[in-house]
Amino acid sequence: MSESRLKTAEIVSVGTELLLGQIIDTHAPTMARLLASCGIACQRRSTLGDNLERLTAGLKEALERVDIVITIGGLGPTDDDLTRDAIAAALGDGLVKEAKVEEALRKFFAVRGMAFVESNAKQAMRPESATLIENPNGTAPGLLCQKNGKTVISLPGPAGEFNPMAFGPVKEFLSRASGGGVIHSRILRVTGIGESMVEDRIRHLMLGENPTVAPYVHDDVHLRLTARAPTVAQADALIDPVDAAIRGILGAAVYGSDATTLEMAVIEELVRRRQTLAVAESMTGGGVGERLTSVPGSSQAFLGGVIVYRPEVKTELLRIPGDFLARHGPVSAETAEAMAMAVRRHLGADFGLAITGNAGPTSDVDDKPVGLTFVAVAGPGGVRMEEVKYRGIRDDIRRRAGQLALRTLREELLKAD
Amino acid sequence: MSESRLKTAEIVSVGTELLLGQIIDTHAPTMARLLASCGIACQRRSTLGDNLERLTAGLKEALERVDIVITIGGLGPTDDDLTRDAIAAALGDGLVKEAKVEEALRKFFAVRGMAFVESNAKQAMRPESATLIENPNGTAPGLLCQKNGKTVISLPGPAGEFNPMAFGPVKEFLSRASGGGVIHSRILRVTGIGESMVEDRIRHLMLGENPTVAPYVHDDVHLRLTARAPTVAQADALIDPVDAAIRGILGAAVYGSDATTLEMAVIEELVRRRQTLAVAESMTGGGVGERLTSVPGSSQAFLGGVIVYRPEVKTELLRIPGDFLARHGPVSAETAEAMAMAVRRHLGADFGLAITGNAGPTSDVDDKPVGLTFVAVAGPGGVRMEEVKYRGIRDDIRRRAGQLALRTLREELLKAD
Repeated sequence: MSESRLKTAEIVSVGTELLLGQIIDTHAPTMARLLASCGIACQRRSTLGDNLERLTAGLKEALERVDIVITIGGLGPTDDDLTRDAIAAALGDGLVKEAKVEEALRKFFAVRGMAFVESNAKQAMRPESATLIENPNGTAPGLLCQKNGKTVISLPGPAGEFNPMAFGPVKEFLSRASGGGVIHSRILRVTGIGESMVEDRIRHLMLGENPTVAPYVHDDVHLRLTARAPTVAQADALIDPVDAAIRGILGAAVYGSDATTLEMAVIEELVRRRQTLAVAESMTGGGVGERLTSVPGSSQAFLGGVIVYRPEVKTELLRIPGDFLARHGPVSAETAEAMAMAVRRHLGADFGLAITGNAGPTSDVDDKPVGLTFVAVAGPGGVRMEEVKYRGIRDDIRRRAGQLALRTLREELLKAD
Repeated sequence: MSESRLKTAEIVSVGTELLLGQIIDTHAPTMARLLASCGIACQRRSTLGDNLERLTAGLKEALERVDIVITIGGLGPTDDDLTRDAIAAALGDGLVKEAKVEEALRKFFAVRGMAFVESNAKQAMRPESATLIENPNGTAPGLLCQKNGKTVISLPGPAGEFNPMAFGPVKEFLSRASGGGVIHSRILRVTGIGESMVEDRIRHLMLGENPTVAPYVHDDVHLRLTARAPTVAQADALIDPVDAAIRGILGAAVYGSDATTLEMAVIEELVRRRQTLAVAESMTGGGVGERLTSVPGSSQAFLGGVIVYRPEVKTELLRIPGDFLARHGPVSAETAEAMAMAVRRHLGADFGLAITGNAGPTSDVDDKPVGLTFVAVAGPGGVRMEEVKYRGIRDDIRRRAGQLALRTLREELLKAD
């Protein structure tokens, strides 16, 4: 392995229950992030079942493509645990017994008054070129195999064994193997502009190689800025000017970075201004309140509100006259406006946020088309109204309506400056 | 492809953000379960980044190993969306433009008053051997390519587009392609009994081989009954007696099967009784309303309610006297009871459901410990109260509090018989 070029890796998750989707694999993403943090380029992740032939073939192929192959799972005592055999076969190694591991295993069982089933002795076997990675939290040690310039690292599947081993000795090995350096990412979160429009406006910033800039859609548009550098601080120093340039172009559409959600940005802005918010939700049924109150400390700014799902409740809770509702219909700009103003007034809030619409699948309260959504923000400067027609299924329409509500509120907050 | 042998498949998830572990892949497990349900053997899952060369190589290798390759993601309009190009390259196809897709795209943007950025036209391109899979929920159609006895199916990444396409036309195609035989599962959803207790009571039913019965914990306990048979109807016939036996033992704790959620079970029960519900939420901030209104047609039973997040709002919206709140505190059995009765009365509902508690991380409205939760159900027969102290992080505590609220309400509904 040349020390100068970027080291490459693949992750192979092992287990039929993973392959068939009966459990979700969270270890492989963890390991992918760990590789990046160590400055190693993860090029592929695979999931294979408990089948010796296919597992061996998968490992052989991976070893042809990259420097480091990391396996997760399949190190246990049962007949289904085949990782150690597959690694030996892929490397052309024999298996040898590690006497002191078998001894420790026998002791482990004796201490607990459990019978030592012979299949457990399997966990004392290792490929010839492997050294063992200690596992203080379980019975199967990990494996570190180095042969012909390639490395195979093998970790157990249980979370309580995988995590300490991954973030302990494996991270240490990977940091050394990479020859120093990190791959560090920052996410910029953008709202109110579509993906292709974002790309159009910052295309010249997407041509750089360090950092790279990649957009992806995740309700809103996220921009991932990724830099390679000797340290995280140096990677941040490479990212900072590009971050600033993007914010310069997209302006307030960038609402936060990394794990910042739109509801966090809204609560933060309200708290900064010492202003308060109340909501009146119809189609979202409480979903916007739920998001706002997911932010710790949100009670500094969020008072509460009303869920006016059935039309008559709009009269009971917000005192919107029945004949007004009958004239305009519950799904209308007029009703959204009346809801926002009423909830603002009744709760004595600085801002009232209202959402009404038809999420489908059928129009059950109105003759308005499915997807039609009205958002109103009532504030000290008057009322702002948004009307959108969404496509998609009920859940999507409701989620997007909530996103629109928070986005519109944020824009009104920023405008008040 | 021989019609008699089991068809094989691989799933390829596409996207650097997936590869690097920045988002968790839930679509690939969904597709793996779908393949199993169609009687197709999923032999490998891979995740590849937005790199044309490596993506093309990965698809070529997969096509050499199995009958059907399914890709997820990378069909969007940006420069990073390379799946379409990689499939064409792997199949040795050229790309052709589908005029009516481009026309539909231009119309989509025009109707919304949005500028049509030229990169969007990319979504109208398809490999020569592909037919399009309609995408009523987004702009990028899916692809179905059949060439040299191999099949490539390509689905978009956004959940609102992926799921309808996967469970609609793709499932239909896969069922036909498998040429018979299914692996069919039914989930029984159980609430109010812990996993080990469930297992203890139905252990004798867990010894069978067809169907198998496997419990797993997913907020509540789910029991997965899985049968192999030539048809779904025959698999169901194998599952039915075991299903009946489990319900015989666990009784009303089984609230539904498959995708039935607790909120669906509650709404269904209310509709059946022609009774109505109103909620008063404090710690859950609207989350229970959000869950109830996620059920299509919920307005038949769910009227709405109040989000009384800050203590003073309990007075403003529910007219609970300030000195009552000061005496008992906002997080107390007395306040929960008062909230449930008040919201029931003000909205004229048959049932009032109230949740108050401290979700942490700090006690911001009260000196009550983090995790302490009160649920009250006010109904025609009086008030039922539940008090629990949850451990865990804010999100967990709020979610469990909501689950407790729905479970308690359901028990009160069933009791009324």
